[in-house]
Amino acid sequence: MNLKIALLSGDGVGPEVTAQAVKCLQAVEETFGHQFTFTSASVGAIAIEETGDPLPEATLDLCKASDAVLFGAIGDPKYDNQPDAKVRPEQGLLRLRKELGLFSNIRPVQVFPSLLDQSPLRKSIIKGTDFVIYRELTGGIYFGEKTLSEDGTRASDLCVYTEKEISRIAHLAFKAAKGRKKKLTLVDKANVLESSRLWRRVVSKIAESYPEVKLDFLFADNAAMQIILNPRQFDVILTDNLFGDILSDEGSVIGGSIGLLPSASVGEQHALFEPIHGSYPQAKGKNMANPVASILSAAMLLDHFGLTEEAQAVVAAINKSMKKGIVTEDLDAQSKYGTDEVGEFVASNIVDSD
Amino acid sequence: MNLKIALLSGDGVGPEVTAQAVKCLQAVEETFGHQFTFTSASVGAIAIEETGDPLPEATLDLCKASDAVLFGAIGDPKYDNQPDAKVRPEQGLLRLRKELGLFSNIRPVQVFPSLLDQSPLRKSIIKGTDFVIYRELTGGIYFGEKTLSEDGTRASDLCVYTEKEISRIAHLAFKAAKGRKKKLTLVDKANVLESSRLWRRVVSKIAESYPEVKLDFLFADNAAMQIILNPRQFDVILTDNLFGDILSDEGSVIGGSIGLLPSASVGEQHALFEPIHGSYPQAKGKNMANPVASILSAAMLLDHFGLTEEAQAVVAAINKSMKKGIVTEDLDAQSKYGTDEVGEFVASNIVDSD
Ligand SMILES: [Mg+2]
Ligand SMILES: [Mg+2]
Repeated sequence: MNLKIALLSGDGVGPEVTAQAVKCLQAVEETFGHQFTFTSASVGAIAIEETGDPLPEATLDLCKASDAVLFGAIGDPKYDNQPDAKVRPEQGLLRLRKELGLFSNIRPVQVFPSLLDQSPLRKSIIKGTDFVIYRELTGGIYFGEKTLSEDGTRASDLCVYTEKEISRIAHLAFKAAKGRKKKLTLVDKANVLESSRLWRRVVSKIAESYPEVKLDFLFADNAAMQIILNPRQFDVILTDNLFGDILSDEGSVIGGSIGLLPSASVGEQHALFEPIHGSYPQAKGKNMANPVASILSAAMLLDHFGLTEEAQAVVAAINKSMKKGIVTEDLDAQSKYGTDEVGEFVASNIVDSD
Repeated sequence: MNLKIALLSGDGVGPEVTAQAVKCLQAVEETFGHQFTFTSASVGAIAIEETGDPLPEATLDLCKASDAVLFGAIGDPKYDNQPDAKVRPEQGLLRLRKELGLFSNIRPVQVFPSLLDQSPLRKSIIKGTDFVIYRELTGGIYFGEKTLSEDGTRASDLCVYTEKEISRIAHLAFKAAKGRKKKLTLVDKANVLESSRLWRRVVSKIAESYPEVKLDFLFADNAAMQIILNPRQFDVILTDNLFGDILSDEGSVIGGSIGLLPSASVGEQHALFEPIHGSYPQAKGKNMANPVASILSAAMLLDHFGLTEEAQAVVAAINKSMKKGIVTEDLDAQSKYGTDEVGEFVASNIVDSD
């Protein structure tokens, strides 16, 4: 298969971890006889420095012309305490998602058996957890109209949802549930929000087309509790942009290492794959960031294009590295392996696996 | 001291647990020579049944004429899956908060040492946790303008905040931090929301008047992670209505029993005290609900009026009941004690303590 892959490695540790994912994709290319073309472009704080724009036109054009985007991370601490900055790194990713129509963010929450002891939750609670969150990504309050009164004493954000926006991600989530444990939980605040009540009506109607999937409902505040109390109860969680932001991050830490979790952002025409960890600026250039999430994102990319065997080879090589203790220091404080060594090991084991 | 207390016990287990709190307040009255007048009124689903209104005029009048409100719980499952119901039990509490100007919801997150093993978190993580969440309660998206398009395919909710709304709760939170560990964490999404950026500006300015308090900032999604990963880092968390709803519920379960946690809702003129647990309809009338949260809410009421010694006597009696194993079945599956017996024991130990 020929694939044009846009590399947007971004800020902080983004470039380091993305480089390992590329090594692994090149190992897949070589081993399975595919042809992947990688083209880099800038995004985030580094793009602001270079061009003044967190998503330069050239970067967007490249992404539109590519089959998939492999994304690193964006964000720089110097923007965090500048509430008034007009141009912000995060705008790069938000706009890219909007421009590519990536309306669905897919985040698996899984526990690696060898890492059960790393979980902040008791083993009896976390063991066997395996769910996936479908978060709506291009609508809701992050994209609604914002206002600030002239005297600066009143600010507002508008949360809007349409039936179409809810419907398209709901279908993806129901299809995923059909291939999994056949349970879909819609998370909202239908007791107080009009937009949530629209979600309930639209999703309840769509559920009739998926009679094999059991649909239930949970308020977002209750969901925040249930993820801690009993994460095994979930199969597919479907929710809006804001609730999904909070709950998918909460879900990401219960397994014990956020450095391990990949994500996909999918639309009708395009798809983007990225580790869920941030730019982790303190670790930049220190060869200590965990590249596994970025490599697993590359595996989700392969899976997205139907390259199932290839994706499995990547996952198998990662499992081998964990079993052998070839991991970064977030997983083993005594480890002598860095970002690069873990990436090398995984890549070379993809080649060796056939 | 003379206090007029309005009793709004509400739905589900509300009446059962509130009855135990009243017993304890009566024990305080008797023991310390105060005079408390208790007057009951209906609210929630039961008020809808009786009058068609979840907050009848007579109930609101009583609350306005009282020094404090002792609240039970509201909510009935028959409304949960009726997104279109025009009249809902929750509206009773939302409107009461608004009418009484209760702009600040205060939720302590503490761990009872004897219950460390009940926490879903590992003991090493939860031990020593002691923070309090100040959640803005009458502004934000739950109260902003709602729209639904005529054809029912588009819905919106508006999140609005003003400097005044932020300022008044910020002062309460800074004062609390001053008397505690002197750290205040503002939780928001200033990277994407205009209203959050207003929170940062207003709170940063107010911080100058409290130089002894260290102010830091955390995005809401990160806060959802940090509460699980390292809850000891927090002292006072200040946040808006929606984030506070989710995070305070997340915080409520890390200690191991949500049945134990009280809350206060405070305004300039009025104050309301309630357990944070819901109406728990499955347990209604079964004498099994834990009354400790309601009794601790009564202790917060006493504290609010400067009756510190009295509040401590209530807390001491609760600790005694726990040490003696006189607890409901949520804390000890083998327990033979019910709601009523736990309430009796605590009340009689308030009398005996002096
Ligand atoms: Mg997030
Ligand atoms: Mg809540």
